[in-house]
Amino acid sequence: MELYSERGFDQTTVAEIAARAGLTERTFFRHYADKREVLFAGSEMLTERLVSSVAGAADSSTPLDTVVAALEEIGALIQESRGRDFARARRSVVAANPGLQERELIKLASWANTLAGALRERGDKDPTATLAAETGVAVFRVAFDRWVGDGNDLDLPALIRESLGTLKGLTGDYRRPATERAQTPPVERTLRS
Amino acid sequence: MELYSERGFDQTTVAEIAARAGLTERTFFRHYADKREVLFAGSEMLTERLVSSVAGAADSSTPLDTVVAALEEIGALIQESRGRDFARARRSVVAANPGLQERELIKLASWANTLAGALRERGDKDPTATLAAETGVAVFRVAFDRWVGDGNDLDLPALIRESLGTLKGLTGDYRRPATERAQTPPVERTLRS
Repeated sequence: MELYSERGFDQTTVAEIAARAGLTERTFFRHYADKREVLFAGSEMLTERLVSSVAGAADSSTPLDTVVAALEEIGALIQESRGRDFARARRSVVAANPGLQERELIKLASWANTLAGALRERGDKDPTATLAAETGVAVFRVAFDRWVGDGNDLDLPALIRESLGTLKGLTGDYRRPATERAQTPPVERTLRS
Repeated sequence: MELYSERGFDQTTVAEIAARAGLTERTFFRHYADKREVLFAGSEMLTERLVSSVAGAADSSTPLDTVVAALEEIGALIQESRGRDFARARRSVVAANPGLQERELIKLASWANTLAGALRERGDKDPTATLAAETGVAVFRVAFDRWVGDGNDLDLPALIRESLGTLKGLTGDYRRPATERAQTPPVERTLRS
């Protein structure tokens, strides 16, 4: 990640990565198919975690709450394992490279597919399952962007819950007053006005 | 589209497309950068339409309703211009080719970005704007999949509205009864049970 940040993704070679990490190229390739996959490491483990979280959800949990709880779980994992500085550096590298942006879109689309499948496994029907999964991933993306982007030290799982709250406000009879602060949940807004 | 369906996207050459359409290759390239762009023709026009629809929405329209109304508008355009048989053939071609699937994801991501920008233009703040845009596109995708996939002759804009209704049900205090029909909005379900 240091090398990608310093000289750009395209300009970095696997030989340089291996040298910086004190490994042989051969060892590198035992772990990663190519230098792109370094940025998507752990993705399979996260996908498995999404599936097991949905499978373990209470029967009374709504499809959307189930999906968002699963995404909160992996949000906590991401935050604890590599942390926000890594995520921020990674974001800059991905943002500078259209190929990586595509790969990122594909990753999120595959999460949505996985989540929809896991919901169907527990008995949710389509289009509900797909809609809950796609919407949950949208909730995650917005929260993740804030987590990576904000100057202050916010908690990713809390941001995901907050993002779900914002969505729930949006689908209610939310009306936009002239001087709204969009982040404020509708209930608070009503109390203040 | 005939050629893509008959022999696959990769196996079709621009020369063959031009011959089938009774054009020279030169004329083809005046309209499309490459053979991939044939499948994404009209995308710019649709994007412009999304922006103008959001810009023209009533001030009282919620961000999510505004986005979904814009997507309904282009849903109607897609249905009227090329129709469902075209969409169905196109879907098969795209599904068979990972590169085209990626391009499709990018198209939808760019719609979401465009819609979020248009919402911000009318005064909606982030994360509300981004969340409404991303969620709206999820609503559209689910509706579009049903439109293309279903055997019967459904109306795309109506499916988009229905998909929004499903989402609104999902974010309420939706609980999944043992024998639910997921498509049924919660209000009806309550009345029946």
